[in-house]
Amino acid sequence: DSYETNLAKAVTDADMVVVCVPMGAMGAVFRAIRSHLAADAVVTDAGSSKRSVIEAAQQAFDGLPPFLVPGHPIAGTERTGVDASFASLYRGRKVILTPTPNSAPQAVARVKAMWEASGAQLIEMAPDHHDEVLAATSHLPHMLAYNLVDMLGTMQQRREMFRYAAGGFRDFTRIASSDPVMWHDICLANSDALLAAVDGFAASLAELRTAIADGDSETLMDCFTRAKTLRDAHIELDAP
Amino acid sequence: DSYETNLAKAVTDADMVVVCVPMGAMGAVFRAIRSHLAADAVVTDAGSSKRSVIEAAQQAFDGLPPFLVPGHPIAGTERTGVDASFASLYRGRKVILTPTPNSAPQAVARVKAMWEASGAQLIEMAPDHHDEVLAATSHLPHMLAYNLVDMLGTMQQRREMFRYAAGGFRDFTRIASSDPVMWHDICLANSDALLAAVDGFAASLAELRTAIADGDSETLMDCFTRAKTLRDAHIELDAP
Repeated sequence: DSYETNLAKAVTDADMVVVCVPMGAMGAVFRAIRSHLAADAVVTDAGSSKRSVIEAAQQAFDGLPPFLVPGHPIAGTERTGVDASFASLYRGRKVILTPTPNSAPQAVARVKAMWEASGAQLIEMAPDHHDEVLAATSHLPHMLAYNLVDMLGTMQQRREMFRYAAGGFRDFTRIASSDPVMWHDICLANSDALLAAVDGFAASLAELRTAIADGDSETLMDCFTRAKTLRDAHIELDAP
Repeated sequence: DSYETNLAKAVTDADMVVVCVPMGAMGAVFRAIRSHLAADAVVTDAGSSKRSVIEAAQQAFDGLPPFLVPGHPIAGTERTGVDASFASLYRGRKVILTPTPNSAPQAVARVKAMWEASGAQLIEMAPDHHDEVLAATSHLPHMLAYNLVDMLGTMQQRREMFRYAAGGFRDFTRIASSDPVMWHDICLANSDALLAAVDGFAASLAELRTAIADGDSETLMDCFTRAKTLRDAHIELDAP
Protein backbone atom coordinates (compact mmCIF):
# COMPACT_ATOMS: atom_id res chain seq x y z
CA ASP A 1 0.00 0.00 0.00
CA SER A 2 2.93 2.32 0.57
CA TYR A 3 6.69 2.25 0.57
CA GLU A 4 9.47 4.04 2.35
CA THR A 5 13.16 4.05 1.54
CA ASN A 6 14.26 5.48 4.88
CA LEU A 7 14.65 2.51 7.23
CA ALA A 8 14.09 4.48 10.42
CA LYS A 9 10.84 5.95 9.09
CA ALA A 10 9.79 2.59 7.63
CA VAL A 11 9.77 0.85 11.03
CA THR A 12 8.44 3.71 13.18
CA ASP A 13 5.03 2.68 14.59
CA ALA A 14 5.14 -0.68 12.75
CA ASP A 15 3.90 -3.58 14.88
CA MET A 16 5.49 -6.11 12.49
CA VAL A 17 8.83 -5.69 10.71
CA VAL A 18 9.80 -8.35 8.14
CA VAL A 19 13.42 -7.96 7.04
CA CYS A 20 13.78 -9.32 3.47
CA VAL A 21 17.27 -8.40 2.32
CA PRO A 22 20.28 -10.41 1.13
CA MET A 23 21.90 -12.26 4.04
CA GLY A 24 24.93 -9.96 4.09
CA ALA A 25 22.74 -6.90 4.72
CA MET A 26 20.84 -8.32 7.72
CA GLY A 27 23.23 -6.95 10.36
CA ALA A 28 23.28 -3.44 8.86
CA VAL A 29 19.48 -3.33 8.66
CA PHE A 30 19.12 -4.54 12.27
CA ARG A 31 21.51 -1.78 13.39
CA ALA A 32 19.69 0.84 11.33
CA ILE A 33 16.28 0.03 12.81
CA ARG A 34 17.15 -0.88 16.41
CA SER A 35 16.57 2.55 17.97
CA HIS A 36 13.43 3.24 15.90
CA LEU A 37 11.35 0.15 16.70
CA ALA A 38 8.02 0.66 18.47
CA ALA A 39 7.76 -0.73 22.03
CA ASP A 40 5.49 -3.60 20.92
CA ALA A 41 7.15 -4.24 17.54
CA VAL A 42 7.91 -7.81 16.46
CA VAL A 43 10.83 -8.38 14.08
CA THR A 44 11.17 -11.37 11.79
CA ASP A 45 13.06 -12.03 8.54
CA ALA A 46 12.92 -14.12 5.37
CA GLY A 47 16.57 -15.14 5.19
CA SER A 48 17.62 -18.46 3.66
CA SER A 49 20.04 -19.36 6.45
CA LYS A 50 19.12 -18.93 10.10
CA ARG A 51 22.26 -19.30 12.20
CA SER A 52 23.86 -16.33 10.48
CA VAL A 53 20.76 -14.17 11.00
CA ILE A 54 20.75 -15.03 14.69
CA GLU A 55 24.46 -14.15 14.95
CA ALA A 56 23.91 -10.87 13.11
CA ALA A 57 20.97 -10.03 15.40
CA GLN A 58 22.95 -10.91 18.52
CA GLN A 59 25.63 -8.40 17.53
CA ALA A 60 23.26 -5.69 16.29
CA PHE A 61 20.91 -5.84 19.29
CA ASP A 62 23.59 -6.65 21.94
CA GLY A 63 22.01 -10.02 22.67
CA LEU A 64 18.88 -11.73 21.40
CA PRO A 65 15.78 -9.58 22.00
CA PRO A 66 12.38 -11.11 22.90
CA PHE A 67 10.77 -9.39 19.89
CA LEU A 68 12.96 -11.28 17.36
CA VAL A 69 11.56 -14.42 15.66
CA PRO A 70 13.80 -15.57 12.77
CA GLY A 71 11.93 -17.22 9.91
CA HIS A 72 12.22 -18.54 6.37
CA PRO A 73 9.34 -18.86 3.91
CA ILE A 74 10.14 -21.79 1.56
CA ALA A 75 8.67 -20.11 -1.47
CA GLY A 76 9.74 -17.82 -4.24
CA THR A 77 10.74 -17.82 -7.86
CA GLU A 78 13.96 -17.03 -9.68
CA ARG A 79 12.71 -13.45 -10.03
CA THR A 80 13.44 -10.60 -7.63
CA GLY A 81 11.82 -7.35 -6.60
CA VAL A 82 8.33 -5.93 -6.13
CA ASP A 83 7.29 -6.70 -9.71
CA ALA A 84 7.97 -10.40 -9.10
CA SER A 85 5.46 -10.59 -6.23
CA PHE A 86 2.03 -12.21 -6.48
CA ALA A 87 -0.72 -12.64 -3.90
CA SER A 88 -0.74 -16.44 -3.79
CA LEU A 89 3.05 -16.83 -3.40
CA TYR A 90 2.81 -18.36 0.09
CA ARG A 91 -0.41 -20.31 -0.30
CA GLY A 92 0.20 -23.95 0.65
CA ARG A 93 3.92 -23.25 1.11
CA LYS A 94 5.91 -23.98 4.22
CA VAL A 95 7.36 -21.30 6.47
CA ILE A 96 10.03 -22.42 8.91
CA LEU A 97 10.40 -20.43 12.14
CA THR A 98 13.55 -20.79 14.23
CA PRO A 99 12.69 -18.95 17.47
CA THR A 100 15.66 -18.16 19.71
CA PRO A 101 15.69 -19.11 23.42
CA ASN A 102 14.73 -15.48 24.06
CA SER A 103 11.85 -15.16 21.56
CA ALA A 104 8.68 -14.15 23.43
CA PRO A 105 5.77 -16.59 22.96
CA GLN A 106 3.50 -13.68 21.97
CA ALA A 107 6.01 -12.61 19.32
CA VAL A 108 6.18 -16.15 17.90
CA ALA A 109 2.37 -16.33 17.87
CA ARG A 110 2.11 -13.02 16.00
CA VAL A 111 4.60 -14.10 13.30
CA LYS A 112 2.77 -17.41 12.91
CA ALA A 113 -0.57 -15.61 12.56
CA MET A 114 0.88 -13.34 9.86
CA TRP A 115 2.14 -16.24 7.75
CA GLU A 116 -1.00 -18.30 8.29
CA ALA A 117 -3.05 -15.38 7.00
CA SER A 118 -1.09 -15.64 3.74
CA GLY A 119 -1.98 -19.34 3.44
CA ALA A 120 1.31 -20.83 4.60
CA GLN A 121 1.94 -23.89 6.80
CA LEU A 122 4.14 -23.17 9.83
CA ILE A 123 6.94 -25.38 11.18
CA GLU A 124 9.37 -24.70 14.03
CA MET A 125 12.92 -25.98 13.79
CA ALA A 126 16.36 -25.49 15.34
CA PRO A 127 18.47 -23.04 13.29
CA ASP A 128 21.31 -25.49 12.59
CA HIS A 129 18.88 -28.15 11.49
CA HIS A 130 17.20 -25.65 9.15
CA ASP A 131 20.56 -24.70 7.70
CA GLU A 132 21.49 -28.33 6.96
CA VAL A 133 18.18 -29.21 5.35
CA LEU A 134 18.10 -26.08 3.20
CA ALA A 135 21.75 -26.47 2.20
CA ALA A 136 20.88 -29.85 0.69
CA THR A 137 17.49 -29.08 -0.86
CA SER A 138 17.93 -25.47 -1.98
CA HIS A 139 21.44 -24.06 -1.70
CA LEU A 140 23.17 -27.06 -3.28
CA PRO A 141 20.77 -27.27 -6.28
CA HIS A 142 21.37 -23.57 -6.94
CA MET A 143 25.12 -24.15 -6.97
CA LEU A 144 24.69 -27.08 -9.37
CA ALA A 145 22.52 -25.05 -11.75
CA TYR A 146 24.82 -22.01 -11.70
CA ASN A 147 27.83 -24.27 -12.16
CA LEU A 148 26.32 -26.15 -15.10
CA VAL A 149 25.31 -23.02 -17.01
CA ASP A 150 28.63 -21.31 -16.30
CA MET A 151 30.52 -24.41 -17.43
CA LEU A 152 28.55 -24.63 -20.69
CA GLY A 153 29.36 -20.95 -21.26
CA THR A 154 33.07 -21.73 -21.26
CA MET A 155 32.78 -24.45 -23.89
CA GLN A 156 33.79 -23.81 -27.47
CA GLN A 157 30.38 -24.79 -28.78
CA ARG A 158 28.76 -22.39 -26.32
CA ARG A 159 26.14 -21.02 -28.69
CA GLU A 160 25.08 -24.48 -29.76
CA MET A 161 24.94 -25.72 -26.20
CA PHE A 162 22.04 -23.45 -25.51
CA ARG A 163 20.46 -23.82 -28.94
CA TYR A 164 19.93 -27.55 -28.49
CA ALA A 165 18.88 -27.41 -24.87
CA ALA A 166 15.40 -28.85 -24.41
CA GLY A 167 12.65 -28.54 -21.82
CA GLY A 168 14.51 -30.61 -19.24
CA PHE A 169 17.46 -28.23 -19.40
CA ARG A 170 15.19 -25.20 -19.20
CA ASP A 171 13.59 -26.43 -15.96
CA PHE A 172 16.85 -27.72 -14.54
CA THR A 173 18.59 -24.36 -15.00
CA ARG A 174 15.69 -22.05 -14.15
CA ILE A 175 17.18 -21.36 -10.72
CA ALA A 176 20.42 -20.18 -12.38
CA SER A 177 18.43 -17.04 -13.23
CA SER A 178 18.25 -16.19 -9.53
CA ASP A 179 19.77 -13.00 -8.15
CA PRO A 180 23.59 -13.36 -7.93
CA VAL A 181 23.89 -11.04 -4.89
CA MET A 182 21.29 -13.02 -2.96
CA TRP A 183 23.08 -16.30 -3.67
CA HIS A 184 26.55 -14.91 -3.07
CA ASP A 185 25.35 -13.90 0.39
CA ILE A 186 23.69 -17.28 1.06
CA CYS A 187 26.95 -19.07 0.13
CA LEU A 188 28.86 -17.07 2.70
CA ALA A 189 26.12 -17.10 5.36
CA ASN A 190 25.59 -20.88 5.24
CA SER A 191 29.02 -21.98 4.06
CA ASP A 192 29.55 -24.80 6.60
CA ALA A 193 26.36 -26.66 5.76
CA LEU A 194 26.68 -25.85 2.04
CA LEU A 195 30.25 -27.16 1.83
CA ALA A 196 29.16 -30.41 3.50
CA ALA A 197 26.35 -30.75 0.96
CA VAL A 198 28.68 -30.00 -1.98
CA ASP A 199 31.16 -32.59 -0.68
CA GLY A 200 28.44 -35.21 -0.30
CA PHE A 201 27.24 -34.52 -3.82
CA ALA A 202 30.75 -34.62 -5.31
CA ALA A 203 31.53 -37.94 -3.61
CA SER A 204 28.28 -39.42 -4.86
CA LEU A 205 28.89 -38.07 -8.39
CA ALA A 206 32.36 -39.66 -8.37
CA GLU A 207 30.75 -43.05 -7.63
CA LEU A 208 28.27 -42.54 -10.45
CA ARG A 209 31.15 -41.61 -12.76
CA THR A 210 32.92 -44.87 -11.87
CA ALA A 211 29.74 -46.83 -12.60
CA ILE A 212 29.43 -45.18 -16.04
CA ALA A 213 33.12 -45.77 -16.84
CA ASP A 214 32.90 -49.41 -15.73
CA GLY A 215 29.61 -50.06 -17.53
CA ASP A 216 28.28 -51.12 -14.12
CA SER A 217 24.64 -51.67 -15.04
CA GLU A 218 23.52 -52.70 -11.58
CA THR A 219 24.81 -49.57 -9.85
CA LEU A 220 23.36 -47.31 -12.55
CA MET A 221 19.94 -48.97 -12.48
CA ASP A 222 19.90 -48.94 -8.66
CA CYS A 223 20.76 -45.25 -8.48
CA PHE A 224 18.27 -44.14 -11.16
CA THR A 225 15.49 -46.36 -9.84
CA ARG A 226 15.94 -45.20 -6.24
CA ALA A 227 15.96 -41.57 -7.37
CA LYS A 228 12.89 -41.93 -9.57
CA THR A 229 10.97 -43.74 -6.83
CA LEU A 230 11.84 -41.13 -4.21
CA ARG A 231 11.15 -38.19 -6.50
CA ASP A 232 7.81 -39.55 -7.72
CA ALA A 233 6.67 -40.47 -4.21
CA HIS A 234 7.60 -37.28 -2.40
CA ILE A 235 7.25 -34.49 -4.87
CA GLU A 236 3.81 -35.27 -6.20
CA LEU A 237 2.43 -35.54 -2.67
CA ASP A 238 3.83 -32.16 -1.77
CA ALA A 239 2.69 -30.36 -4.92
CA PRO A 240 0.69 -27.26 -3.99
CA ASP B 1 -4.16 -45.63 -35.35
CA SER B 2 -3.04 -49.19 -34.83
CA TYR B 3 -0.33 -51.10 -33.02
CA GLU B 4 1.55 -54.33 -33.55
CA THR B 5 3.79 -56.14 -31.07
CA ASN B 6 5.39 -58.41 -33.68
CA LEU B 7 8.34 -56.46 -35.11
CA ALA B 8 8.40 -58.28 -38.44
CA LYS B 9 4.70 -57.62 -39.02
CA ALA B 10 5.03 -54.04 -37.77
CA VAL B 11 7.52 -53.05 -40.47
CA THR B 12 6.10 -55.06 -43.39
CA ASP B 13 4.87 -52.61 -46.06
CA ALA B 14 5.83 -49.60 -43.92
CA ASP B 15 7.47 -46.80 -45.94
CA MET B 16 8.81 -45.18 -42.76
CA VAL B 17 10.11 -47.01 -39.71
CA VAL B 18 11.00 -44.92 -36.64
CA VAL B 19 12.84 -46.97 -34.03
CA CYS B 20 12.13 -45.52 -30.57
CA VAL B 21 13.58 -47.95 -28.05
CA PRO B 22 16.20 -47.66 -25.30
CA MET B 23 19.69 -47.36 -26.80
CA GLY B 24 20.67 -50.89 -25.75
CA ALA B 25 17.81 -52.40 -27.77
CA MET B 26 18.61 -50.65 -31.08
CA GLY B 27 20.83 -53.43 -32.46
CA ALA B 28 18.33 -56.18 -31.62
CA VAL B 29 15.49 -54.27 -33.26
CA PHE B 30 17.56 -53.58 -36.38
CA ARG B 31 18.36 -57.30 -36.63
CA ALA B 32 14.72 -58.27 -36.08
CA ILE B 33 13.42 -56.01 -38.85
CA ARG B 34 16.20 -56.23 -41.45
CA SER B 35 14.73 -59.01 -43.57
CA HIS B 36 11.16 -57.65 -43.34
CA LEU B 37 11.67 -54.10 -44.56
CA ALA B 38 9.88 -53.05 -47.75
CA ALA B 39 12.07 -52.24 -50.77
CA ASP B 40 11.44 -48.50 -50.45
CA ALA B 41 11.37 -48.33 -46.63
CA VAL B 42 13.27 -45.58 -44.82
CA VAL B 43 14.53 -46.29 -41.30
CA THR B 44 15.26 -43.61 -38.73
CA ASP B 45 15.42 -43.56 -34.93
CA ALA B 46 14.92 -41.29 -31.94
CA GLY B 47 17.95 -42.33 -29.90
CA SER B 48 19.73 -39.86 -27.60
CA SER B 49 23.22 -40.78 -28.78
CA LYS B 50 24.06 -41.18 -32.44
CA ARG B 51 27.49 -42.80 -32.73
CA SER B 52 26.26 -45.89 -30.90
CA VAL B 53 23.16 -46.16 -33.14
CA ILE B 54 25.33 -45.98 -36.22
CA GLU B 55 27.64 -48.68 -34.83
CA ALA B 56 24.67 -50.90 -33.96
CA ALA B 57 23.24 -50.40 -37.47
CA GLN B 58 26.57 -51.12 -39.11
CA GLN B 59 26.69 -54.52 -37.38
CA ALA B 60 23.00 -55.37 -37.80
CA PHE B 61 22.83 -54.44 -41.49
CA ASP B 62 26.40 -55.54 -42.40
CA GLY B 63 27.37 -52.01 -43.35
CA LEU B 64 25.44 -48.74 -43.43
CA PRO B 65 22.40 -49.01 -45.70
CA PRO B 66 21.20 -46.08 -47.87
CA PHE B 67 17.75 -46.25 -46.24
CA LEU B 68 19.09 -45.43 -42.74
CA VAL B 69 18.95 -41.82 -41.48
CA PRO B 70 19.79 -41.61 -37.75
CA GLY B 71 17.99 -38.82 -35.91
CA HIS B 72 17.20 -37.37 -32.50
CA PRO B 73 14.17 -35.22 -31.66
CA ILE B 74 15.15 -32.84 -28.84
CA ALA B 75 11.79 -33.04 -27.14
CA GLY B 76 10.05 -35.13 -24.55
CA THR B 77 9.07 -35.12 -20.93
CA GLU B 78 10.08 -37.21 -17.93
CA ARG B 79 7.15 -39.51 -18.73
CA THR B 80 7.31 -42.65 -20.90
CA GLY B 81 4.92 -44.67 -23.03
CA VAL B 82 1.93 -44.10 -25.27
CA ASP B 83 -0.09 -42.39 -22.54
CA ALA B 84 2.62 -39.74 -22.22
CA SER B 85 2.29 -38.68 -25.87
CA PHE B 86 0.58 -35.49 -27.03
CA ALA B 87 0.08 -34.06 -30.51
CA SER B 88 2.12 -30.87 -30.06
CA LEU B 89 5.18 -32.58 -28.55
CA TYR B 90 7.45 -31.68 -31.48
CA ARG B 91 5.99 -28.30 -32.39
CA GLY B 92 8.77 -25.69 -32.41
CA ARG B 93 11.27 -28.29 -31.16
CA LYS B 94 14.53 -29.18 -32.83
CA VAL B 95 15.23 -32.50 -34.48
CA ILE B 96 18.87 -33.32 -35.18
CA LEU B 97 19.62 -35.65 -38.10
CA THR B 98 23.03 -37.29 -38.40
CA PRO B 99 22.99 -38.86 -41.88
CA THR B 100 25.73 -41.39 -42.55
CA PRO B 101 28.00 -41.15 -45.63
CA ASN B 102 25.71 -43.80 -47.14
CA SER B 103 22.34 -42.21 -46.37
CA ALA B 104 20.42 -41.66 -49.63
CA PRO B 105 19.40 -38.02 -50.23
CA GLN B 106 15.79 -39.14 -50.87
CA ALA B 107 15.76 -40.97 -47.52
CA VAL B 108 17.08 -37.87 -45.71
CA ALA B 109 14.44 -35.74 -47.46
CA ARG B 110 11.65 -38.11 -46.42
CA VAL B 111 12.73 -38.12 -42.75
CA LYS B 112 12.95 -34.31 -42.81
CA ALA B 113 9.49 -34.03 -44.31
CA MET B 114 8.06 -36.30 -41.61
CA TRP B 115 9.48 -34.22 -38.76
CA GLU B 116 8.58 -30.93 -40.43
CA ALA B 117 5.00 -32.14 -40.69
CA SER B 118 4.98 -32.45 -36.89
CA GLY B 119 6.13 -28.84 -36.54
CA ALA B 120 9.81 -29.48 -35.77
CA GLN B 121 12.89 -27.56 -36.95
CA LEU B 122 15.51 -29.75 -38.64
CA ILE B 123 19.29 -29.55 -38.19
CA GLU B 124 22.01 -31.79 -39.61
CA MET B 125 25.08 -32.54 -37.56
CA ALA B 126 28.01 -34.97 -37.36
CA PRO B 127 27.26 -37.83 -34.93
CA ASP B 128 30.23 -37.17 -32.62
CA HIS B 129 29.35 -33.50 -32.44
CA HIS B 130 25.76 -34.39 -31.56
CA ASP B 131 26.97 -36.73 -28.83
CA GLU B 132 29.17 -34.06 -27.23
CA VAL B 133 26.52 -31.35 -27.27
CA LEU B 134 23.83 -33.64 -25.90
CA ALA B 135 26.15 -35.07 -23.24
CA ALA B 136 26.58 -31.56 -21.86
CA THR B 137 23.04 -30.21 -22.22
CA SER B 138 20.95 -33.30 -21.56
CA HIS B 139 22.82 -36.36 -20.35
CA LEU B 140 24.88 -34.53 -17.72
CA PRO B 141 21.87 -32.67 -16.23
CA HIS B 142 20.03 -35.98 -15.90
CA MET B 143 23.01 -37.46 -14.01
CA LEU B 144 23.08 -34.42 -11.70
CA ALA B 145 19.37 -34.65 -10.96
CA TYR B 146 19.43 -38.41 -10.35
CA ASN B 147 22.53 -38.02 -8.20
CA LEU B 148 21.06 -35.23 -6.10
CA VAL B 149 17.80 -37.06 -5.36
CA ASP B 150 19.60 -40.33 -4.66
CA MET B 151 22.03 -38.55 -2.32
CA LEU B 152 19.19 -36.88 -0.39
CA GLY B 153 17.59 -40.29 -0.06
CA THR B 154 20.64 -41.59 1.81
CA MET B 155 20.61 -38.78 4.36
CA GLN B 156 19.31 -39.36 7.87
CA GLN B 157 16.78 -36.56 7.54
CA ARG B 158 15.55 -38.06 4.29
CA ARG B 159 11.85 -37.48 4.92
CA GLU B 160 12.42 -33.88 5.85
CA MET B 161 14.63 -33.27 2.86
CA PHE B 162 11.70 -33.76 0.56
CA ARG B 163 9.17 -32.15 2.87
CA TYR B 164 10.94 -28.79 2.75
CA ALA B 165 11.83 -28.87 -0.91
CA ALA B 166 10.32 -25.90 -2.74
CA GLY B 167 9.41 -25.10 -6.33
CA GLY B 168 13.04 -24.71 -7.40
CA PHE B 169 13.82 -28.22 -6.22
CA ARG B 170 10.72 -29.61 -7.90
CA ASP B 171 11.75 -28.21 -11.30
CA PHE B 172 15.42 -29.04 -10.80
CA THR B 173 14.69 -32.70 -10.07
CA ARG B 174 11.82 -33.27 -12.51
CA ILE B 175 14.15 -35.11 -14.90
CA ALA B 176 15.03 -37.56 -12.09
CA SER B 177 11.58 -39.03 -12.74
CA SER B 178 12.75 -40.19 -16.16
CA ASP B 179 12.81 -43.87 -17.11
CA PRO B 180 15.82 -45.60 -15.45
CA VAL B 181 16.26 -48.13 -18.29
CA MET B 182 16.36 -45.39 -20.91
CA TRP B 183 19.01 -43.47 -18.96
CA HIS B 184 21.02 -46.54 -18.06
CA ASP B 185 21.27 -47.25 -21.78
CA ILE B 186 22.19 -43.65 -22.66
CA CYS B 187 25.00 -43.71 -20.06
CA LEU B 188 26.52 -46.76 -21.67
CA ALA B 189 25.85 -45.69 -25.28
CA ASN B 190 27.38 -42.21 -24.87
CA SER B 191 29.84 -42.91 -22.07
CA ASP B 192 32.88 -41.17 -23.63
CA ALA B 193 31.19 -37.83 -24.12
CA LEU B 194 29.25 -38.14 -20.86
CA LEU B 195 32.37 -38.87 -18.81
CA ALA B 196 34.07 -35.82 -20.30
CA ALA B 197 31.06 -33.69 -19.37
CA VAL B 198 30.95 -35.13 -15.82
CA ASP B 199 34.66 -34.42 -15.41
CA GLY B 200 34.28 -30.85 -16.64
CA PHE B 201 31.40 -30.31 -14.24
CA ALA B 202 33.25 -31.84 -11.28
CA ALA B 203 36.33 -29.69 -11.92
CA SER B 204 34.20 -26.57 -12.15
CA LEU B 205 32.28 -27.52 -8.98
CA ALA B 206 35.58 -28.00 -7.13
CA GLU B 207 36.55 -24.42 -8.06
CA LEU B 208 33.19 -23.14 -6.84
CA ARG B 209 33.68 -25.09 -3.60
CA THR B 210 37.05 -23.40 -3.07
CA ALA B 211 35.48 -20.00 -3.65
CA ILE B 212 32.77 -20.72 -1.04
CA ALA B 213 35.31 -22.04 1.47
CA ASP B 214 37.58 -19.02 0.94
CA GLY B 215 34.74 -16.51 1.03
CA ASP B 216 35.96 -15.42 -2.42
CA SER B 217 33.21 -12.93 -3.24
CA GLU B 218 34.59 -11.96 -6.62
CA THR B 219 34.70 -15.52 -7.97
CA LEU B 220 31.22 -16.28 -6.64
CA MET B 221 29.69 -13.09 -8.06
CA ASP B 222 31.44 -13.64 -11.41
CA CYS B 223 30.20 -17.22 -11.71
CA PHE B 224 26.61 -16.47 -10.71
CA THR B 225 26.40 -13.34 -12.85
CA ARG B 226 27.82 -15.07 -15.94
CA ALA B 227 25.41 -17.97 -15.47
CA LYS B 228 22.38 -15.75 -14.96
CA THR B 229 23.25 -13.61 -17.98
CA LEU B 230 23.74 -16.63 -20.24
CA ARG B 231 20.64 -18.41 -19.00
CA ASP B 232 18.41 -15.35 -19.31
CA ALA B 233 19.74 -14.50 -22.78
CA HIS B 234 19.57 -17.92 -24.37
CA ILE B 235 16.70 -19.71 -22.77
CA GLU B 236 14.04 -17.06 -23.12
CA LEU B 237 14.84 -16.63 -26.81
CA ASP B 238 14.49 -20.35 -27.41
CA ALA B 239 11.26 -20.81 -25.47
CA PRO B 240 8.65 -22.48 -27.66
